[in-house]
Amino acid sequence: MNQLNIATAPAAGYATVSAQVSPTGGLDVLSRNEVARLSDASGTGLHVLLRRCALAVLTSGTISDDPRTMFERYPAFDIQVRQQDRGIRIELQHAPAQAFVDGKIIRGINELLVAVIRDIVYVAAQIEQGGFDLADPVGITHAVFEILRNARVLQAQKDPNLVVCWGGHSISREEYEYSKAVGYQLGLRGMDICTGCGPGAMKGPMKGANIAHAKQRHTRNRYIGISEPGIIAAESPNPIVNELVIMPDIEKRLEAFVRVGHGIIVFPGGVGTAEEILYLLGILLHPDNRSLPFPLIFTGPAHSAGYFEQIDRFLRLTLGDSVAEHYRIIVGQPVEVALEMVRGVERVRAYRRATEDAFFFNWGLRIPFEFQQPFPATHEAVAGLSLRHGRPRHELAADLRRAFSAIVAGNVKEAGVKAIEAHGPFVIDGDADIMAALDAMLKAFVADDRMKIPGGTAYEPCYRLAQAEI
Amino acid sequence: MNQLNIATAPAAGYATVSAQVSPTGGLDVLSRNEVARLSDASGTGLHVLLRRCALAVLTSGTISDDPRTMFERYPAFDIQVRQQDRGIRIELQHAPAQAFVDGKIIRGINELLVAVIRDIVYVAAQIEQGGFDLADPVGITHAVFEILRNARVLQAQKDPNLVVCWGGHSISREEYEYSKAVGYQLGLRGMDICTGCGPGAMKGPMKGANIAHAKQRHTRNRYIGISEPGIIAAESPNPIVNELVIMPDIEKRLEAFVRVGHGIIVFPGGVGTAEEILYLLGILLHPDNRSLPFPLIFTGPAHSAGYFEQIDRFLRLTLGDSVAEHYRIIVGQPVEVALEMVRGVERVRAYRRATEDAFFFNWGLRIPFEFQQPFPATHEAVAGLSLRHGRPRHELAADLRRAFSAIVAGNVKEAGVKAIEAHGPFVIDGDADIMAALDAMLKAFVADDRMKIPGGTAYEPCYRLAQAEI
Amino acid sequence: MNQLNIATAPAAGYATVSAQVSPTGGLDVLSRNEVARLSDASGTGLHVLLRRCALAVLTSGTISDDPRTMFERYPAFDIQVRQQDRGIRIELQHAPAQAFVDGKIIRGINELLVAVIRDIVYVAAQIEQGGFDLADPVGITHAVFEILRNARVLQAQKDPNLVVCWGGHSISREEYEYSKAVGYQLGLRGMDICTGCGPGAMKGPMKGANIAHAKQRHTRNRYIGISEPGIIAAESPNPIVNELVIMPDIEKRLEAFVRVGHGIIVFPGGVGTAEEILYLLGILLHPDNRSLPFPLIFTGPAHSAGYFEQIDRFLRLTLGDSVAEHYRIIVGQPVEVALEMVRGVERVRAYRRATEDAFFFNWGLRIPFEFQQPFPATHEAVAGLSLRHGRPRHELAADLRRAFSAIVAGNVKEAGVKAIEAHGPFVIDGDADIMAALDAMLKAFVADDRMKIPGGTAYEPCYRLAQAEI
Amino acid sequence: MNQLNIATAPAAGYATVSAQVSPTGGLDVLSRNEVARLSDASGTGLHVLLRRCALAVLTSGTISDDPRTMFERYPAFDIQVRQQDRGIRIELQHAPAQAFVDGKIIRGINELLVAVIRDIVYVAAQIEQGGFDLADPVGITHAVFEILRNARVLQAQKDPNLVVCWGGHSISREEYEYSKAVGYQLGLRGMDICTGCGPGAMKGPMKGANIAHAKQRHTRNRYIGISEPGIIAAESPNPIVNELVIMPDIEKRLEAFVRVGHGIIVFPGGVGTAEEILYLLGILLHPDNRSLPFPLIFTGPAHSAGYFEQIDRFLRLTLGDSVAEHYRIIVGQPVEVALEMVRGVERVRAYRRATEDAFFFNWGLRIPFEFQQPFPATHEAVAGLSLRHGRPRHELAADLRRAFSAIVAGNVKEAGVKAIEAHGPFVIDGDADIMAALDAMLKAFVADDRMKIPGGTAYEPCYRLAQAEI
Repeated sequence: MNQLNIATAPAAGYATVSAQVSPTGGLDVLSRNEVARLSDASGTGLHVLLRRCALAVLTSGTISDDPRTMFERYPAFDIQVRQQDRGIRIELQHAPAQAFVDGKIIRGINELLVAVIRDIVYVAAQIEQGGFDLADPVGITHAVFEILRNARVLQAQKDPNLVVCWGGHSISREEYEYSKAVGYQLGLRGMDICTGCGPGAMKGPMKGANIAHAKQRHTRNRYIGISEPGIIAAESPNPIVNELVIMPDIEKRLEAFVRVGHGIIVFPGGVGTAEEILYLLGILLHPDNRSLPFPLIFTGPAHSAGYFEQIDRFLRLTLGDSVAEHYRIIVGQPVEVALEMVRGVERVRAYRRATEDAFFFNWGLRIPFEFQQPFPATHEAVAGLSLRHGRPRHELAADLRRAFSAIVAGNVKEAGVKAIEAHGPFVIDGDADIMAALDAMLKAFVADDRMKIPGGTAYEPCYRLAQAEI
Repeated sequence: MNQLNIATAPAAGYATVSAQVSPTGGLDVLSRNEVARLSDASGTGLHVLLRRCALAVLTSGTISDDPRTMFERYPAFDIQVRQQDRGIRIELQHAPAQAFVDGKIIRGINELLVAVIRDIVYVAAQIEQGGFDLADPVGITHAVFEILRNARVLQAQKDPNLVVCWGGHSISREEYEYSKAVGYQLGLRGMDICTGCGPGAMKGPMKGANIAHAKQRHTRNRYIGISEPGIIAAESPNPIVNELVIMPDIEKRLEAFVRVGHGIIVFPGGVGTAEEILYLLGILLHPDNRSLPFPLIFTGPAHSAGYFEQIDRFLRLTLGDSVAEHYRIIVGQPVEVALEMVRGVERVRAYRRATEDAFFFNWGLRIPFEFQQPFPATHEAVAGLSLRHGRPRHELAADLRRAFSAIVAGNVKEAGVKAIEAHGPFVIDGDADIMAALDAMLKAFVADDRMKIPGGTAYEPCYRLAQAEI
Repeated sequence: MNQLNIATAPAAGYATVSAQVSPTGGLDVLSRNEVARLSDASGTGLHVLLRRCALAVLTSGTISDDPRTMFERYPAFDIQVRQQDRGIRIELQHAPAQAFVDGKIIRGINELLVAVIRDIVYVAAQIEQGGFDLADPVGITHAVFEILRNARVLQAQKDPNLVVCWGGHSISREEYEYSKAVGYQLGLRGMDICTGCGPGAMKGPMKGANIAHAKQRHTRNRYIGISEPGIIAAESPNPIVNELVIMPDIEKRLEAFVRVGHGIIVFPGGVGTAEEILYLLGILLHPDNRSLPFPLIFTGPAHSAGYFEQIDRFLRLTLGDSVAEHYRIIVGQPVEVALEMVRGVERVRAYRRATEDAFFFNWGLRIPFEFQQPFPATHEAVAGLSLRHGRPRHELAADLRRAFSAIVAGNVKEAGVKAIEAHGPFVIDGDADIMAALDAMLKAFVADDRMKIPGGTAYEPCYRLAQAEI
Repeated sequence: MNQLNIATAPAAGYATVSAQVSPTGGLDVLSRNEVARLSDASGTGLHVLLRRCALAVLTSGTISDDPRTMFERYPAFDIQVRQQDRGIRIELQHAPAQAFVDGKIIRGINELLVAVIRDIVYVAAQIEQGGFDLADPVGITHAVFEILRNARVLQAQKDPNLVVCWGGHSISREEYEYSKAVGYQLGLRGMDICTGCGPGAMKGPMKGANIAHAKQRHTRNRYIGISEPGIIAAESPNPIVNELVIMPDIEKRLEAFVRVGHGIIVFPGGVGTAEEILYLLGILLHPDNRSLPFPLIFTGPAHSAGYFEQIDRFLRLTLGDSVAEHYRIIVGQPVEVALEMVRGVERVRAYRRATEDAFFFNWGLRIPFEFQQPFPATHEAVAGLSLRHGRPRHELAADLRRAFSAIVAGNVKEAGVKAIEAHGPFVIDGDADIMAALDAMLKAFVADDRMKIPGGTAYEPCYRLAQAEI
């Protein structure tokens, strides 16, 4: 989108705007308590969190992998929320000028800001008053449910049509255009899109669907972005997202994807995408989920065929050949991807009907506790992973998922980056063949530029594979 | 509305319908827990409550003061809520046929049913998980706020225009027509209406406003009914209500009225209306509320002038002449009532703007704890009231409010009626002149047919005035 | 609606308001020519017509049978239409105050005013430029079609649900309540209402349907009023009408009714109602219409049973017993009326589908030319009628229709009233038994107060039955 | 939009679909006459016209300059319109598959089809019944008004915000992206877009505005395409157009642009664009239009600066330096273009308000008859042009416009191409310096690839400049 650059790039420096903004797009009414908590200038966690997420939203459309860059560019940025006659008023200080047109905030960005405030307030209030039981699998699922419900993402009386798209935020032009083509074909067929809400494969499908929806004169289209505070700075919401949810952590974000989506399409990506694949397959391999239909398609343009071959090999090696029953790889055929997904969603619909399960939330999916528990990306935690054959498949998948999660954190999350700076790379241990395969795959990611990181310098791995060194 | 009778009165007996109903009108998505709790067939409190309120809604438009009558007419009525693909499904067994047309539930009644389920589930969940702190004035106000917010009654971005109308459910035809005329004049001027949602003065203003809104082509009109489980059976929601909230008890219902309304009009009524007047004046007399604008108008047709003279005398006697500064009495002039209210609401608007208070919730109003605490209508509690001169005015008002509240309970609420049956009338004590004035007023209510009670037999008082006997 | 009187009756005299009004509710854009034509102050026909119809609309809800009364009450009333930036501006001088609230025109009345302007401009332009061929049956039908289309009354993509209600504007309270009850039952079942848009049986069904639509949360309800310049002053549109069309004359108005309605219900009325019945039956008796389903129900409350017995007898006498196959008489059963109409409309729907005819316009109905030609209510024309046995039934029906039409004109239309004042009563001639039956029926109308006329004085017949005198 | 190709390009040959389509998007109800006229299979002009325009719409998004190509690709294509219960039904035979998804027509294309039918029927009916007086300037303007009104393009109650964008359908990628950037900046500021509805500079601004409108959450955006039967095949409507109007000829299309637009932006283009510029400047130079504000901006990316310099020189040479007061040239600054247009539209708004002229139609603009009369692109007519100094400026501008118009016809219009094939190039005569300048400009168009024509072969000029040969 060239015009974005033309439109917003100031001649020099980072232009800012200070403004008072009235929230639009259905901000729920806030109570005095809630406003007080957000407005707190004392530097408590809530205000820090609000400032961080708000800035990500205000730089919507900007591409940068470094979570710290934003604050370096807009060091004086601040946000305050005030009670006012018609509801609340948002006061922005030294906010990125790109979020404004002639001094007025862009309405879509206003809405994303409102979503940020809504979720931060809600989660804080629930956790404070003990509304969530996070020590229990059912409690975690209910927390996910409640946050999504509060954000009005769960909608009754709608037919299943929500396709989750995963894939890298840093992909080639060809892969991006392909993801748009897939989104276009999905949109022509009335599907809505849910992604991690950043750039790349998270934006392409939404953009394509948006054009198709316009041609089909669909209204009330949904472009749902599900983020979390640790990643939102690195993957700031693209401008098409019209429903944004900030989940408290990466595990609840992943659970949100698999509970609200009626099918998932994976485009090429890096370690984050690998983490997502392992997460989902680990769950689908659980015996309780055997009969549950869950359409899962890996797809990319012809020139990316090698990517999925490698993923496929890695999955078969670590989780056995039968894992491949859970996904279908389609290369270079957007129409076929869309048709396959339409058929898959139809199966989901029939199953939910038969089991009287909700369309809007996949209650029937069993998510083992190890996939729900937040994994802290520390050296100790990583050292505790065991990537060895012989373990139950979904347990091994869980540890593989954690390993990828740690690498993501070491690459782009603030805490992870600091840990690496202090203690050197994470050491990941496991069986030799798994380590070798992992090594090959990670190296290929680097070679394919899928591990792009802040600064654009050559990739310096944040991990070391113990066995691979032998 | 003659056609209602024509339409629904079966030739003999009480016709029923059993049906499965899909909820309409924005029922929030329910979680599995919530559905399980409601569906419980074991006869716990929640299901009993649901059945009671649901039946009231299904007999919407019926006039009967006896809360037990409904269950005698529809003894086999039951309601179950089930999880289903598109959300939930409501199963009704032997429900009143009047809620259906050719076997299909009337959509407006469906919506009221949904409101009942929503509020029962929400309040139960909050109370269970400790979301409300009911031992504290601020906690109670927040509970009121949260219940109203969950019901989406609180709407930001709207100008103040909500007029609360109080008055009797059993009033003369002339008074009813007058309340319609006032509602019509309010509606012509863009006001929305909030009432206790039963018949009589709770229906007339909504009906008049509805016609005016149609003539003005207003859409998104609000006819808010605020009820509570103890009263809903006696005052089942009239069919015009399009936003129904079930507050947990009478005190929170009263607080909801005064926090959401931008002005209040009182039509003639009986003891319930007297309770409401004392509640509001008791609050307005509190020193902290001195500078707060709160439009309050007493009005009725010319022939009801005597009613408000009596109320006025009683208020001056008990609370001092200056109490009259808080209200204006207008007789037989609907246009003037509407204009006065428009001016009053304009003052409220200016004040909220100046103080940066919300339009949708009157945070600035101080409600003393004694007006918030539920008053149990027991003989002991009534015996503890002290209706004597010399007390701070808002304290005396609080006790007067409680005395009227007890009489309402003894007249029409299940627990109150049983208590009277078991132990005889409540004994109310106080200074002689107050007792005499109270006695005169209550007798006038009886004489004017304002104490109409179940069965239509002559009124048998549920109270005795201690002093008045001397 | 008592509040209307309360609201609008000034203490003394007829209050007026002068105001500039912006049209609302979809006034089509006017061309400079059209505006010029309307604005003409030179007293041409178009401005006279506009002033007349506009005044009728501005007195919406007023009951008066005398077309001249309005102008006597508001002698200084004038209306001008001006070109303006956003479209047009309507300037009202000395308009009835009842159309305004606090100096602002009621929006519904604004919309009716816009409809008046739209139709007057359109018809004048079409006639001037030769767009209508009124000398030809097909041309007349197309003129009716074009006027209705221009008024956007014809809507594609809608299921048949339009019930035309005919009946007197001057009926008893009981009949009025009954017509409301029927409208209510129709509304509960999703039917829309079309009437002549005046008071009485033209308002009751709309009012009842309006309440039912609100209960069913129906939106986009249609309350269509079809009038014509000669009658609008006597039957000014009731306030519920949200689509008003002014047809050029009575015959095109009647054709509009039978082409857009999917069924017709006739309530008790006077000669106007008799005219409508004869018009419709005359058409339905035409051999070409034999197989066309056209639901027709005569209904009223129990106490009006005699009315329809008399009508039935008269129809059988004049048109033969088989005429009764075309209608069903239902007394005192609103639910049954509604169910019968729902079934009838279902037959219409099936027939149109089978014959590929439009739902929105009954192209298939053959209307003989004699029912389309305007009948001038002059003494000569009336003298030419031949109410005798032995003629083809639809021809006799046509003359009977004309006879009733003449009496309506002599009673309430300006030209007719003047003709009677100048030349004495119309003389109607025919076979003795027909004359006797006619005489009995007309006398019953007088006895039942169905011939109420201006001033409220005793009814002075505007006709004389030639044979009946013998 | 790569995905379009991916989605729709069949492996080989031109896939077709036959389908019955229900019209969507507000097709007015058609009368039996109108349907009969369209359905005529006898090959009359109306059906030929319908088939031609319908095919253009069904190939929406395809790029081809040869009007005959379409029919060669889809030789068996046919369209019939039939009367049906819910309105009309459109039957398509062997229609381009690209207009369908899984056998269902794309809704946006359905709407464009409906617009084609609507305009063809309307214009034919008006012309047949003499509704338009085309021999008179005022009559022509009214015809333009009526066609636009019938298409509901004229909307009252809207603030001026319609920017007409002119420019080539065959422009460079950089120019296309620039036109998108300008559209984006206009869209951010709430402007709507009107173009000739083909590709290139007619699509870019709409696409950019569409993205901006989505970000601003604008709804009811307008992307108006104004075409005519001679050009629609060469410039088939791009998929973003949501209001399409088919004017009867090029002159009425040009008049439509300048009467509905509140300002005009010209991007680089070829002879068609030159024609448009001459048309508008010829009008603005007319003394009667002296005080009328009409924002006119010439703009392109930096590398196209030379284009406008050349245009500017040519205009000054032929029409005098003062012609440049009527436009502003802005190079490479989309934000400045948008801001300048916003300011210009504000002046238009103020002027219309002051003169009480309509916002939706520029009645005040005087268009001399010579700019309204259709110019037949024949050798005789071209020979009659006089491109010489000394004539009144707007007359010379008129002839210059006609010269360019002839070249457009000779390049891409069916009749023009045939005339050239039969008789050789048009010979254009005039003063030597004008001829030289014209020659230079046309050669530059060819050099810059702005004269791209069917088949993609080297450009063979369809004209010869008489003087230039000397």
